[in-house]
Amino acid sequence: MEKGTGSPAAGGSCPQKNAEILSSQYGINLFLAGLLLTFAWAVHAVGISKSHLLSYLITLMLIQLLWMLWYLCRSCTQRRLIRDKDTHAGARWLKCGITLFAVITLILDSFKIGYYIDFSNCLSPTEGIFPVTHAAHTILQVYFLWCHAKDIIQSFKTLERFGVIHSVFTNLLLWTNGVLTESKHQLNEHKERLITLGFGNITIVLDDHAPQCNCTTTTLCSIFSQGIYYLYPFNIEYHILASTMLYVLWKNIGRKVEHHQQHKTPFKFHGITVGMIFGLIVLTSTIAVVVVYLIQIGRSKIKSELALTMFYLHAIFVLALMCTAGVVALLIYRLEDRSLDNSKNPARKLDAELLVGTAAGSWLLSWGSILAIICAQAHPKYTWFNLPYSVLVIIEKYIQNLFIIESIHREQEKANDDIKTLRIVTISRGSTLSLTPSYKEIYNGRAARDIGELPCLVSSSICARESDGGGGANEETSQGNSPVMRSASEFSFYSRSSVADNKRRILKNIAAFLFLCNLSLWIPPAFGCRPEYDNGLEEIVFGFEPWIIVVNLAMPFSIFYRMHSAASLFEVNCKT
Amino acid sequence: MEKGTGSPAAGGSCPQKNAEILSSQYGINLFLAGLLLTFAWAVHAVGISKSHLLSYLITLMLIQLLWMLWYLCRSCTQRRLIRDKDTHAGARWLKCGITLFAVITLILDSFKIGYYIDFSNCLSPTEGIFPVTHAAHTILQVYFLWCHAKDIIQSFKTLERFGVIHSVFTNLLLWTNGVLTESKHQLNEHKERLITLGFGNITIVLDDHAPQCNCTTTTLCSIFSQGIYYLYPFNIEYHILASTMLYVLWKNIGRKVEHHQQHKTPFKFHGITVGMIFGLIVLTSTIAVVVVYLIQIGRSKIKSELALTMFYLHAIFVLALMCTAGVVALLIYRLEDRSLDNSKNPARKLDAELLVGTAAGSWLLSWGSILAIICAQAHPKYTWFNLPYSVLVIIEKYIQNLFIIESIHREQEKANDDIKTLRIVTISRGSTLSLTPSYKEIYNGRAARDIGELPCLVSSSICARESDGGGGANEETSQGNSPVMRSASEFSFYSRSSVADNKRRILKNIAAFLFLCNLSLWIPPAFGCRPEYDNGLEEIVFGFEPWIIVVNLAMPFSIFYRMHSAASLFEVNCKT
Repeated sequence: MEKGTGSPAAGGSCPQKNAEILSSQYGINLFLAGLLLTFAWAVHAVGISKSHLLSYLITLMLIQLLWMLWYLCRSCTQRRLIRDKDTHAGARWLKCGITLFAVITLILDSFKIGYYIDFSNCLSPTEGIFPVTHAAHTILQVYFLWCHAKDIIQSFKTLERFGVIHSVFTNLLLWTNGVLTESKHQLNEHKERLITLGFGNITIVLDDHAPQCNCTTTTLCSIFSQGIYYLYPFNIEYHILASTMLYVLWKNIGRKVEHHQQHKTPFKFHGITVGMIFGLIVLTSTIAVVVVYLIQIGRSKIKSELALTMFYLHAIFVLALMCTAGVVALLIYRLEDRSLDNSKNPARKLDAELLVGTAAGSWLLSWGSILAIICAQAHPKYTWFNLPYSVLVIIEKYIQNLFIIESIHREQEKANDDIKTLRIVTISRGSTLSLTPSYKEIYNGRAARDIGELPCLVSSSICARESDGGGGANEETSQGNSPVMRSASEFSFYSRSSVADNKRRILKNIAAFLFLCNLSLWIPPAFGCRPEYDNGLEEIVFGFEPWIIVVNLAMPFSIFYRMHSAASLFEVNCKT
Repeated sequence: MEKGTGSPAAGGSCPQKNAEILSSQYGINLFLAGLLLTFAWAVHAVGISKSHLLSYLITLMLIQLLWMLWYLCRSCTQRRLIRDKDTHAGARWLKCGITLFAVITLILDSFKIGYYIDFSNCLSPTEGIFPVTHAAHTILQVYFLWCHAKDIIQSFKTLERFGVIHSVFTNLLLWTNGVLTESKHQLNEHKERLITLGFGNITIVLDDHAPQCNCTTTTLCSIFSQGIYYLYPFNIEYHILASTMLYVLWKNIGRKVEHHQQHKTPFKFHGITVGMIFGLIVLTSTIAVVVVYLIQIGRSKIKSELALTMFYLHAIFVLALMCTAGVVALLIYRLEDRSLDNSKNPARKLDAELLVGTAAGSWLLSWGSILAIICAQAHPKYTWFNLPYSVLVIIEKYIQNLFIIESIHREQEKANDDIKTLRIVTISRGSTLSLTPSYKEIYNGRAARDIGELPCLVSSSICARESDGGGGANEETSQGNSPVMRSASEFSFYSRSSVADNKRRILKNIAAFLFLCNLSLWIPPAFGCRPEYDNGLEEIVFGFEPWIIVVNLAMPFSIFYRMHSAASLFEVNCKT
């Protein structure tokens, strides 16, 4: 009845808030139902089997496929509907990363199909349908993200919201499923090691270890079943990345953006050689340590202890280096006082929240280790390395988060650069009147769009120029009279410029180094180095079952943290 | 080096972002360390006792006490420093609520002190120090929240941030501790019931049941130990409320607010009689059901089944009523199209997030029940009531969240009311010139403060009036000529006004009814009705241990949801 009196904007915003809550609650329920199915499968609930869980996941994926097809068709036919793009969302390197992970996920799917064919006698049909659906889902989703990750949807908002949030939580469930499979595998390996080391007192049951029937082609079977677990970490990263990208898409629906051109900042290898070299050293040494660790652990008590000692010493060294690098970067930031960009940016906000949120996973594990070391009755020598390791893990993430979040909030340096160029010209020529055209050219060209951020520097130099120009009747004489002053200015400028350049180079190197370090530190937990299991200390203090629950809950976030911080540091490197 | 060139605003915002991340990470680590200590105590970790946990909590509380004292002293001496207030934060009814809970918490503390004195032979001193510190902490914190919950801190931001976030997480840890003690107690009661019902096959160990020595004064001892568990639910609510209020204080630090006067909207009983009556019926019937349930459950198999059936039927009836009320309210909102207030408001944002976030706890439990019913092999008759109950719990929270979040985002109705009053006068008198004084009176009195929200309506009527006034020489004739038009306008206006008033009255009644219903539904879980344990179905499907973990993790959020939604509905009722 009163509908007519409302303004159009108001009429639009009310259903939108509703659609937001409606869809998010739908998504949460979808996720919770799936989570409980997964949980039920994990605890071997009566009457719930793996095929129930897989059927649920297949249904969700098919619904998402249909929605994506509808969206793609609609956006092809009605191109004019989606005009706004969020320049911050779906960066190119993020798309490349997700494509890489998706390709490996497709290999994983083909392995699973092969595995199903080999064991088809004793596996339910869902185990064959699942990888096929998953492969189709992966291909279409990557295509969808390449084309539409930057969209700001303005039409059919309610339906779009449901579709996008459905996709977000479908990917999160697939991530949960991957994480659980991986955890079960790790736990089985850990139990096998305990059997080898002769711990008979723990009731050891291997979980979902192998199918109950024989394989048709033996060599292929072992390749498939072994290979799957080396590919899982990439599959896990793929799903979590996809769900964050889709979440940003969801947050952007119906948003109003101010159009400001973002200059593309391509990645350059130039000038980060030192950081790259140190980073590559860390990367190769980490790979070597992981290989040795996985070979040695669980062979015998002495070999295990040696492997653990090696792992801890290496990690302590790397983490100490990373802490130092982070502190240096933060000190440089404290020296130069630049304003922060506080404009609305869902992609960046999510990045910052994910960094702190997922770091909490590994902090939890570290506090567990610290508590265990303090409270344990017996301390074998190698367990003492665990204390500095755990403390450093906490401090390193603390510092690194500060560095990354400050970096992604800093405004682009372009404005300052322009001022410098301007000064070079102004000062080196010495005469103000003669250079006015070139000054104007630069000013109008690049600095104009950043005018809001140069409050005093530019205006003061303009004032200086104008007052010079005003009294510029005796131009020739003043030009002749000031060689000393000029060279002093030149010197002060060049030193300032070179200091700023040096700072920037150091920051770029630090970002590159930390990027490679984070990539390195992703490898050990993702591929099954679990010192939290293997050193035995926490298991004794907390008990076998409780500690395994803590590790399995916290570890996925800890692993994701490394990949996510690496991605953020790549962005920092490009921006600096 | 470049420090001097930065503008003051830029210099201020950069350390502020830093202080935000620094302090939040500090708080998270504080919380995680405490969480692991609590977990270690709960799983009986080797070498970690209750006194370790209590010492940690006492230390945190003492630090918070010192900080609050420092803050109170400083704000007394330097009153001018804190001038800005967030009118949305720390509402009066919230303060009253927290004071009520705090008083009951103080009674709980005195019970604990009495309990400690009685059993002092075999309890560690920390169990005596803890309630004393806690009582001091409670008194000072309530005083602090009364005086400073609305503060927008602008000075010493880093130190304040650390202090406030320390307080937030200290309260969260005290909440966790309360929740765990309560859960252990419930679990013990459940195990005792299982023993009575003859389930010997589950390995039953009563946890932290009673001290190992005799009491000095027997009657007092049983009063204390019994009484403590009836007071815990209030203690739990007190801490979570305090931590949300402190979190809003933290979010407000360094914020810049536009000053817009908020009119106080006191709570009135007038006009909500119907809602109150129905709500009170639900409240009393719920209390009756809880008492009968707690007496009957676990006595014998038949009595237990009867108690469960009664509980489910009652809950289904109440939830169905609540769903209907919620749907009616949402339909009324859909009929009138009013704009949403999207201004920045940390208190409101937190409210909305907490509603959806904590509802997830009870959704998880409901999905567990639904899954269990679908998958269970045997279905005793009473378990079938569990299905509609669980489905209704999900739907009711879904609808209620939509209603509350839309309500708290709607703009105040004052503006529209004033326009209507204005119209009554304008139209019913027919003459514009003669009513100018009364028009002005109303306009200046109430509508002036909402001037920003009446863009076209008022200005157009002013224009109309002025143009009338300009041509108002033949005033008498025009007044005589328009009786038909006038009465038509009067009719259309009055019907519109009464429809709007009716809608508003219905909404107020619905909010009052839902408020009392939520308060009612808080009682059963808070005081130990656990049909999720007692019906046995979920325990059989998921297994005893896994299901108990799920319930103990999700239940605190589910209980908090009810209290929080009641608080929000009270606010909705005041605002409508």
